[in-house]
Amino acid sequence: MMNRKAVSVLGLGDMGTALADALLAAGHRVTVWNRTAAKADPLVAKGATRADTAADAIVASPLVVVCLLGYDSVSEVLGPHTDVLAGRTLVNLTNGTPGQAREMAAWAAEHGADYLDGGIMAVPPMIGKPGAFVLYSGPSGAFEAWQPVLDAFGESHYLGEDPGLAPLHDIALLNSMYGMFGGVLHAFALVRSAGGSAAEFAPMARRYVDTMGAYAEVMAARIDAGDYADDVTSNLAMQAAAYANFLDTAEEAGVSTELITPIHSLLQRRVADGHGHEDTASLVELLGK
Amino acid sequence: MMNRKAVSVLGLGDMGTALADALLAAGHRVTVWNRTAAKADPLVAKGATRADTAADAIVASPLVVVCLLGYDSVSEVLGPHTDVLAGRTLVNLTNGTPGQAREMAAWAAEHGADYLDGGIMAVPPMIGKPGAFVLYSGPSGAFEAWQPVLDAFGESHYLGEDPGLAPLHDIALLNSMYGMFGGVLHAFALVRSAGGSAAEFAPMARRYVDTMGAYAEVMAARIDAGDYADDVTSNLAMQAAAYANFLDTAEEAGVSTELITPIHSLLQRRVADGHGHEDTASLVELLGK
Repeated sequence: MMNRKAVSVLGLGDMGTALADALLAAGHRVTVWNRTAAKADPLVAKGATRADTAADAIVASPLVVVCLLGYDSVSEVLGPHTDVLAGRTLVNLTNGTPGQAREMAAWAAEHGADYLDGGIMAVPPMIGKPGAFVLYSGPSGAFEAWQPVLDAFGESHYLGEDPGLAPLHDIALLNSMYGMFGGVLHAFALVRSAGGSAAEFAPMARRYVDTMGAYAEVMAARIDAGDYADDVTSNLAMQAAAYANFLDTAEEAGVSTELITPIHSLLQRRVADGHGHEDTASLVELLGK
Repeated sequence: MMNRKAVSVLGLGDMGTALADALLAAGHRVTVWNRTAAKADPLVAKGATRADTAADAIVASPLVVVCLLGYDSVSEVLGPHTDVLAGRTLVNLTNGTPGQAREMAAWAAEHGADYLDGGIMAVPPMIGKPGAFVLYSGPSGAFEAWQPVLDAFGESHYLGEDPGLAPLHDIALLNSMYGMFGGVLHAFALVRSAGGSAAEFAPMARRYVDTMGAYAEVMAARIDAGDYADDVTSNLAMQAAAYANFLDTAEEAGVSTELITPIHSLLQRRVADGHGHEDTASLVELLGK
């Protein structure tokens, strides 16, 4: 049988509620708190204990899961209770930046708490179901100690001691997804301009993007090696030339080019810088050090 | 056994060579022509017949596959030979825009040729192998008559009579792919800024993008219905708010925001227009009619 633990959840929006639900389903003793107390009612009906104050919720459990609207809310809610943090583990699943996570970790350490930052790669209805995964970063000891409980949310992935790693990877994954969405939305607009059906096109796009996704791993290896070998089937110069058709096609179709011009700009600049013989992966050099 | 046909291939770059190779492998009688004649040598060694002029190549076969650098080259190569086009089927696999395809189809019709335009969804080494597929548009009779031969290149997908449909869908698929590549390149830059390994991150990104790819089909159905229902887990207003963290994170990390700002702009504009309660799919309304 599972090992029953006391866990508190601060913040009962859709995601906080889903997290508390998953902990209850896993058999834990769950204390919940939310600024608007009524949000706790459905969880209390399922066996959770309502804390009247955030301090009461913190005191109730050695593991405190925080899922608020933003880091400002986290500071506001935890700030007045530095006296009860020592010895507890804070798991902050609130969305924020790596910098905010590092700052919050330093603040928690000052007050004797272990701090794990997390990034939830799921929407609330997916929590605790196959496909959901959560990224964690912070002290490995704290992660190992609490992983059996955290696994209730989804697959747990530990990324390292730097507390900024979880939000960084969370955001990197979301940016990957939005890139794909942007490409597909532009494609839908093209197909629609010709009177076509997005629903007929979508499975083809999905299949093609999935197939070409294999190339992300090829690019990754080249980026790590810093070697954008020129023995490639379609180098940047060839791509920059072909890309011109994409812009003409959008214009012919009356579709905005705003989603597709940034890549064209990268291709052109990298070719102009003398890297036309290189692989697509080399575009990363224009994005950062 | 297969039905042996006479097929000519004009243009022996990497792709044209791969196409001729696939036709030879399928047992067809292949005539090849290239401006630089020596490019034909390896194919001649495998049994192809070298035509001395483009006109000879056209006359040699009822099916003429054209794969040149661009439509300008196609006009240049075919233009002087309008007298030998009647009764033949031209399959133009040269990259271009839907407008160029429609113009070329009209020109071919004037000279009595059937015209199919095609978009090859593969790089040359993939031709004739699993995963390669080719989009075709133009007269359905011509497609049906020649599909058994064209299948040598990869899975053949017929899109409709409008000759512009193949290049339009080709480009729509490539735009989908480039969107994903852009998202992943931005993600690699973020991961690299924190000293992380792109190769460790890539499989996670690939898995996440594949999973979220299912959402493309949800969006497609909403776009076709023109109904961007507000019963969504993460509406545009929520996304616009969360997206601000992506920009802050890139700036903190010293990574260019150029690939991620266009989606932010769409989110902000759509929210400002009063559509904040809608689904991601509704962004398509900002891209075209």
